[in-house]
Amino acid sequence: MAKYRNTNPVLTRGYVGYYNFCMIKDLTFDKSTITSLKKIVGSNNIITDKEGVYAYTFDCSHTESNYNNPVMVVFPENTKQVSDIVKFAHANNLPVIPRGAGTNHAGGCMPLHGGIILHFSKMNKILDINPGDLTCRVQPGVVIGDLQKAVDKFALYYPPDPSNLAVSTVGGGIALSSGGPRTFKYGSVKDYVINLEIVLADGTILHTGSNTAKNVTGLNLTQLIVGSEGTLAIVTEALMRLIPKPEAKNVLLVYFNTLDEAVNSVTSILNHHLVPSVVDIIDKKTINTIEDFMPTGLLCDKEAALLIEIDGDTASLPYQQEKIISLCKDNNAAHIVCARNKQEQEKIWMARRSAFAACAKLAPNVITEDVVVPRSKISELSKGIEKLGEKYGIITLIMGHIGDGNIHPNFALDLRDSDTRLRFEKLKKELFELAVSLGGTLSGEHGIGCQKARYLNLALSTETLDIMKKIKKVFDPDNIMNPGKFL
Amino acid sequence: MAKYRNTNPVLTRGYVGYYNFCMIKDLTFDKSTITSLKKIVGSNNIITDKEGVYAYTFDCSHTESNYNNPVMVVFPENTKQVSDIVKFAHANNLPVIPRGAGTNHAGGCMPLHGGIILHFSKMNKILDINPGDLTCRVQPGVVIGDLQKAVDKFALYYPPDPSNLAVSTVGGGIALSSGGPRTFKYGSVKDYVINLEIVLADGTILHTGSNTAKNVTGLNLTQLIVGSEGTLAIVTEALMRLIPKPEAKNVLLVYFNTLDEAVNSVTSILNHHLVPSVVDIIDKKTINTIEDFMPTGLLCDKEAALLIEIDGDTASLPYQQEKIISLCKDNNAAHIVCARNKQEQEKIWMARRSAFAACAKLAPNVITEDVVVPRSKISELSKGIEKLGEKYGIITLIMGHIGDGNIHPNFALDLRDSDTRLRFEKLKKELFELAVSLGGTLSGEHGIGCQKARYLNLALSTETLDIMKKIKKVFDPDNIMNPGKFL
Repeated sequence: MAKYRNTNPVLTRGYVGYYNFCMIKDLTFDKSTITSLKKIVGSNNIITDKEGVYAYTFDCSHTESNYNNPVMVVFPENTKQVSDIVKFAHANNLPVIPRGAGTNHAGGCMPLHGGIILHFSKMNKILDINPGDLTCRVQPGVVIGDLQKAVDKFALYYPPDPSNLAVSTVGGGIALSSGGPRTFKYGSVKDYVINLEIVLADGTILHTGSNTAKNVTGLNLTQLIVGSEGTLAIVTEALMRLIPKPEAKNVLLVYFNTLDEAVNSVTSILNHHLVPSVVDIIDKKTINTIEDFMPTGLLCDKEAALLIEIDGDTASLPYQQEKIISLCKDNNAAHIVCARNKQEQEKIWMARRSAFAACAKLAPNVITEDVVVPRSKISELSKGIEKLGEKYGIITLIMGHIGDGNIHPNFALDLRDSDTRLRFEKLKKELFELAVSLGGTLSGEHGIGCQKARYLNLALSTETLDIMKKIKKVFDPDNIMNPGKFL
Repeated sequence: MAKYRNTNPVLTRGYVGYYNFCMIKDLTFDKSTITSLKKIVGSNNIITDKEGVYAYTFDCSHTESNYNNPVMVVFPENTKQVSDIVKFAHANNLPVIPRGAGTNHAGGCMPLHGGIILHFSKMNKILDINPGDLTCRVQPGVVIGDLQKAVDKFALYYPPDPSNLAVSTVGGGIALSSGGPRTFKYGSVKDYVINLEIVLADGTILHTGSNTAKNVTGLNLTQLIVGSEGTLAIVTEALMRLIPKPEAKNVLLVYFNTLDEAVNSVTSILNHHLVPSVVDIIDKKTINTIEDFMPTGLLCDKEAALLIEIDGDTASLPYQQEKIISLCKDNNAAHIVCARNKQEQEKIWMARRSAFAACAKLAPNVITEDVVVPRSKISELSKGIEKLGEKYGIITLIMGHIGDGNIHPNFALDLRDSDTRLRFEKLKKELFELAVSLGGTLSGEHGIGCQKARYLNLALSTETLDIMKKIKKVFDPDNIMNPGKFL
């Protein structure tokens, strides 16, 4: 089984500690259960031994787990197998936990109550790309970067682009309605899901919609499943919308001496009929951390920088660029870098994308959070987060999708220190309270998982939560679908 | 109460027949119920007499109704009143039927089982336009055309634009996730609803989401409500997304000698990285009918015409236009009209928008249907519809949003003739079977209402329908929310 373990990003990210491993009790299922599952997926598609299973009991959150129940990992190859696994789980009251690349930041992949992890690395096929319909049909394990490359050959484009697109899967994106930097112009995953094949908690296979661009034939089950983090059903196939690939694009990096000038520039751009494909922000600390990690000539004395990507047809691009430069200058931009070719575009993107890795140099742990507010509150949110970092003595770097009002603060800290952990817990609570007090909410694109479940009542009324719980019961009366998460 | 009757588009469209009116029994509620409702909304905001109520027992479908239960119309002025009305209805097991402008084509506004019609003409305020957040907060009774004009003052744009935008309301649009011609580039109403205030079947008021551009905090209740046709809850307020208004736009009318050439042109345009804001089609019969009704110089000998609207920045527009003209010529366009100014743009749009009214000259009744298929099947669908018209001897005109695979056939007929009615029923069934056989479904934007409910099993599996019914039960256990419709 070793071949699977090496492809697990969790392992390569170094989250596995030998000490923790030794402390947990045996995770192995009884023989009869293992035999039953082997019958379904074949003996090559199952991991049942403690060492093998352990590697899949983490994701990119820093959830501490205290496993008391057996866990196994299965690698289904088709929908029928998924259905049979779930039927078995249903009959035996075992949790099923769908898993893509395990890059979840909110503990959404954690097998908290044991059970069967369905790893989708063997359901990773692009089944169809249809340029006439502007759609593709994919299995959930397809890596997003691979999908983007594949559709590019047809001059098509799949915009939702998480920073870790080289590993993250389409299924994970659907589970979280993930967005990434291009959400501002192009929307998040929810805007690209047309129809889903899902497996219900009793193994029933059904489709949520139709394969059409528009559809108001019954309730929108498709959008109910998108973002439900595997708590309602398991997605086994998705028909995704594509768009014609923009003819051209360019990237600008615009520095400012104050955060407010950066925010005002964005407002100016929007008020002048322009819709950039990306409007991301990084603060001074993030700029410096990236430049320390990988020197590319970033200006380390500036308070903030906007990464602005524009796209469109070849006639529009220089026009947009000129106007954006002029508007940023009007708002006191301190310096503007405008990529002159693909290499320079890549260089700017590389700096932005390496932010998370760069932060890892600052402390043993880096935790990326995800809060979202109405766009006009972004300045208040950013300043508030900075103050929280100071208050609790935790290194805090700010970056995010300013166009969406979505901030991802990176907190660098040492979670081995119990006092730090305590301080961070307090910081987190205040962070969410701050976002909610500004009219925002707990997550724009990382989801709730088990990490934020306890804060849900900050953002949702009892009545709203109650309706969600009742819907959960419709889909999953025995609570076997990714239990212990937000519902 | 007469003042309300005159503002009712159903009346001005002439659907009220004196004969029908005399045939139905008294629709009046008992005194005690009327007194209770008057206490909630005030005696100026209620219609209870037969003549007054009758005018609201129709919509733009041709649903025949045989009323056996009392009906009243109330005009709530705020959410609290809506909640109190629903509480009363809940306690007395009375249906509640939300109603905007009554322009529904699928019988979604029909008070089939009697009850309380909630008319939203007094909850028609734009509460807030926020250019910083790119949002507006509106009551459901706001007329879509009014909203478009209001946000235009802030250089903002609300794209979902039904043909009848001068009367249709935002609430109706939310109920149906309606689209209109600009869906191809900009999406339908569902893509513009950020957060909803709703009233549940027991009168509880809650919010479905947060006021942020992105949100994955719990299940997507917002999208479950959008398109649910008032069968789950009543929308009392909506936070809608706006976009920066495109700087410029233009309209082209491109004629073809064959339908296939028109379809191929659209494919060509998409394959060349272009995304027009509108790609609508009208067939020869529709062209001729419009030209008969309102001569504007349309070319009546051509088989089909594409109405193509492009928008974007001022640099992009001539580039897009030139490219589209060239691609249409490559696909044997017979003639191309390119608007040279706003008046010429308006002239083309006027012709397109008058199609429905023009058809009314052909026969006593015109029924607009709504089917949708994957884009690549549009030619097969159109030809199939034409054959159905011939087979059943019913005048059939084809128009629609070809970019979305969405066809609105107009059927001109005399519904007073029982044989015609029978033939039309058969035609309709085959129409839906055809759409489904091509991988499509029953409705792209008009909804299911009571008119298409019986065909739902053509498009949805028993298992999918079952889940929808269970969700309906969560929201509305006593079936008082717009009963007799698709759920």
